[in-house]
Amino acid sequence: MWPSGQIFCLKDVRFPTSVEQLGSDAMHTDPDYSAAYVVLETDCNLRGFGLTFTLGKGTEIVVCAVKALAGLVVGKCLREIVSDFRGFYRLLSSDSQMRWLGPEKGVIHLATAAVLNAVWDLWARAEGKPLWKLLVDMDPKQIVSCIDFRYITDALTEEEALGEIGLNPKSQEGKQQREHQMLMEGYPAYTTSCAWIGYSDQLLQQLCTDALRSGWTKFKVKVGADLEDDVRRCRLIRETIGPNNTMMIDANQRWDVAEAIEWVSRLAEFKPLWIEEPTSPDDILGHATISKASLFILCHNRVMFKQFLQAAALQFVQIDACRLGSVNENLAVLLMAHKFKVPVCPHAGGVGLCELMQHLILFDYICVSVSLSNRMCEFVDHLHEHFTSPVVIQNACYMPPKDPGYSCEMFESSVRRHQFPDGDVWRLDMKK
Amino acid sequence: MWPSGQIFCLKDVRFPTSVEQLGSDAMHTDPDYSAAYVVLETDCNLRGFGLTFTLGKGTEIVVCAVKALAGLVVGKCLREIVSDFRGFYRLLSSDSQMRWLGPEKGVIHLATAAVLNAVWDLWARAEGKPLWKLLVDMDPKQIVSCIDFRYITDALTEEEALGEIGLNPKSQEGKQQREHQMLMEGYPAYTTSCAWIGYSDQLLQQLCTDALRSGWTKFKVKVGADLEDDVRRCRLIRETIGPNNTMMIDANQRWDVAEAIEWVSRLAEFKPLWIEEPTSPDDILGHATISKASLFILCHNRVMFKQFLQAAALQFVQIDACRLGSVNENLAVLLMAHKFKVPVCPHAGGVGLCELMQHLILFDYICVSVSLSNRMCEFVDHLHEHFTSPVVIQNACYMPPKDPGYSCEMFESSVRRHQFPDGDVWRLDMKK
Repeated sequence: MWPSGQIFCLKDVRFPTSVEQLGSDAMHTDPDYSAAYVVLETDCNLRGFGLTFTLGKGTEIVVCAVKALAGLVVGKCLREIVSDFRGFYRLLSSDSQMRWLGPEKGVIHLATAAVLNAVWDLWARAEGKPLWKLLVDMDPKQIVSCIDFRYITDALTEEEALGEIGLNPKSQEGKQQREHQMLMEGYPAYTTSCAWIGYSDQLLQQLCTDALRSGWTKFKVKVGADLEDDVRRCRLIRETIGPNNTMMIDANQRWDVAEAIEWVSRLAEFKPLWIEEPTSPDDILGHATISKASLFILCHNRVMFKQFLQAAALQFVQIDACRLGSVNENLAVLLMAHKFKVPVCPHAGGVGLCELMQHLILFDYICVSVSLSNRMCEFVDHLHEHFTSPVVIQNACYMPPKDPGYSCEMFESSVRRHQFPDGDVWRLDMKK
Repeated sequence: MWPSGQIFCLKDVRFPTSVEQLGSDAMHTDPDYSAAYVVLETDCNLRGFGLTFTLGKGTEIVVCAVKALAGLVVGKCLREIVSDFRGFYRLLSSDSQMRWLGPEKGVIHLATAAVLNAVWDLWARAEGKPLWKLLVDMDPKQIVSCIDFRYITDALTEEEALGEIGLNPKSQEGKQQREHQMLMEGYPAYTTSCAWIGYSDQLLQQLCTDALRSGWTKFKVKVGADLEDDVRRCRLIRETIGPNNTMMIDANQRWDVAEAIEWVSRLAEFKPLWIEEPTSPDDILGHATISKASLFILCHNRVMFKQFLQAAALQFVQIDACRLGSVNENLAVLLMAHKFKVPVCPHAGGVGLCELMQHLILFDYICVSVSLSNRMCEFVDHLHEHFTSPVVIQNACYMPPKDPGYSCEMFESSVRRHQFPDGDVWRLDMKK
C-alpha cells in the first residue's frame, strides 16, 4: 500500500548556541545544539521527518552513519516495515558488518534513531494522527511487536510486557479519561532554561523570577564544575524559588564515585529531588554505590537501563528520543520502568527533543504508568521557532500536539540557513 | 624537539574475507575485515602508522570520525603530547562537543584508538624501539601518567597503580629475565583460524589436524547459531584435538541470559576453558548471573571492565588494541585486572590486531602479571602479508617484534589495492 521510499534530504544542521552559553554544563561547556536531520520520501509524496540531536562538532559523522544505514531503508515499503517493526529494528541495529561499530551505542545508534524517528513520523502522518495518538490507539499486541526483546528477556519477556504491564485490558480502563485530561491540562514539565552553568548569578535569579511568574514550579540546576560555586548557585536558586517548589541538580557525568558522594552530601541541604548523571553513564555499580541519593540517569540502550533497574541504581528513569533507538527502544524502557515501579521523566531540550519527547510521555501516562506522581518532562525554551509544529506550553505543561506525525519537521528556511558549513549562519561566520 | 605533524594518509581499507567465510561467527556472518588506517607525519619526515579494526560496511563512518579528531592532533608536537599523554587522551576522548557521540564508546572511540595507535607508533619509532620495549623500559611514573583514571578511581587510584600493582621496584625483579625468556620462547598463543562458523565439518577437522602438527595446543570454536550443530562441531573438535589440549568457545553475543545458561550447560561436556561473549557486552549483571561458567569478555571501555571485575562477572579479561582507547586505556585495564587477580588474554585476529596486541601482552607479562598461567594471546592466520613487520609465530608462540614502532604499517601497494571503493579489489568487483 505504501510505495517504496527514498532519502529526500539529509542535513547537518547546527545552531550557534554556544555564543550565549545556552546549554552549557560542567562537561559540555560550549555546545552548539545540532541535528542530523533526515527526510524520507515515498513515491506518493508523503514525507517522514526525523532527527537525532548532537552538540555540534562531529554531526557530520552521524550524517555519514545515516547514509550508511540508508541502504537498509530505501526501497522498503512502509506497510512492510511496520508489519514487522521488530525485524526492521534489528535489521538496522544488528547489521552483521555494522554492529561492530556499536552495537547499539554511540554514533551508529544515534543514526539509527534519526532514521527510525523518520519512519515513525511517516507512519503517524500516513495514519493522519500525532504519534502519541497513534500509539495510544494501537493494539497492545502491535505495540509489543515493535520491541526487540533481545538481551532483556531476563527482566521483561514479551508475554509480561503484554499481559502484566499496562497494556492489558484492565489497565486500559480510564484511558479515554486520561486522554481527555491530557488534552485539557497537558503533561507537567520542568524547566532547565534558567540555570545553565555559564550563566551569571544575576541572570540565574532573573530567569528564575521570570519563570515563577510564568507558572513554573520545578527547576533544574547544572552543577559540577566548582563546589563553592555550586553551593552559592543552589542557595541563590532555592532562595529565589522558595521551599515549596522543586529543584533538581544535574552534574552531567562530571564526578568519580567518591567525589559524587562528597559533592552530593554538600548539596543535600538544598533538597534536590534528584541528582542527575553524577558519574559515567556506563557505571551501573558506581551509581548503585552513590544511590543513597536519589539518582536520575540516561543510558545508551535498553540493556543498560535493564541493569540500572535490576541493581536499583537509579530512582528516576530518563528516556531520550534520540540516544535510544527511537520509539521502539523507548517503549521497551517505559515497560521495564513500569515493571520495576520507577517513574520515567524524559530528557528533552537540545533541538527537537521537546517536540519528540512529549509524544512518548503522553503515551506513558495514558497507557502505561497511569500516574503523574513524581513525573514530569524536561523543557528548555530554545529553538522551537524552527519547527513547523512547535511544542505548546501552557501553565508549565506540555499541551498534546494535534498535527499528524512526530513533530520534528523543520522549516526549510531554517534548515537552509543553519546547514553546516554552507548555511548563512556559518558561512558568514555570524558566530564570531 | 618533535616538529608539528599532519595526517599524511587516511584510508578506508577493506579485505573481501567474507568470500571464504573467514571470520564468520553467529552474529557476524559475512565480515569483510577492514580498517580505518591513519598515517601521521611530522615535518622531519618521521611517520606514525595507526589503525582501528572494523568489519566492512561503515568503515567510512570511522574514517569520517578520524577526520573530525584530526583537528585536535595536527600541529601538536610529539614531545608535548607524550609529556602529558593523560591530558592528550582526555582532549580526544572528552572534547566538549564530540563526547556526546560516545562518550568513549562506538565509532568515536574506535576512531580515537586509530589516532592514538598512530601516536604511540610514532613515539616508539622516534625512540627507535618496538612499542613493547618502549613500555618495558619506561619509568613506571610515566606509564601511569598515560592513564586517564576518570571513573575508575573507586577500583584503582593512581597511587595504587604505581605503588601496589606490578610497577613498583619489587615487582621489577626478574624483569630482565622475563624479557630474555620472551625473546627466546615467545608468548603463548591460541588459534581461532580452525573453527569459523561458516566452515564445513571436513574443513574443521582438516584445519585442526594441520594445526596440531604445527604445534598448536589451544583452539577456539565459534558457536551460537544452532545448538545441535554446535554439539556436533564441538564433539568433532574435541575428538580431533584430544582430551589434553585446550578448547574455548565463543558465542559472539548471540544469547539472552537464560539461553546462555541452557546452551552453556549443553556444551559443558566438551570442557571448554572459557565461554566468550555469551550475551550483550553491555550486560554486566547478566554475565554475573551466567558466570557459573567461566566467562571471557571484551568491553568497550575501562568503566565497563571495572564493573565486570567488581561484580566478578568474568574470569578472563579480553583486551583489544582498537576497541579500547589505544595503549593508554589498555594499560588501565591491565592494571585493574592484575589488582583483581584475573588473567588477561587479548583479542586479536581481524586485520592488524595480532600485530598490535603482541606488544601489550609482552609488556603485561614482563612488567605486570609476571605469569603465564592461564594466559595466551589469540592468533588468526590471515592478512599478515599486508604488513611491513608481520607477526612471527614459532611453536605456537608470538616472537617479540624487533622493528621500531607498533607493527601496524601496511605496504602501500596493499593499501592502494584494497582501498574502498576505488582499489582494484573493489573496483574490479573481484569479490563477486
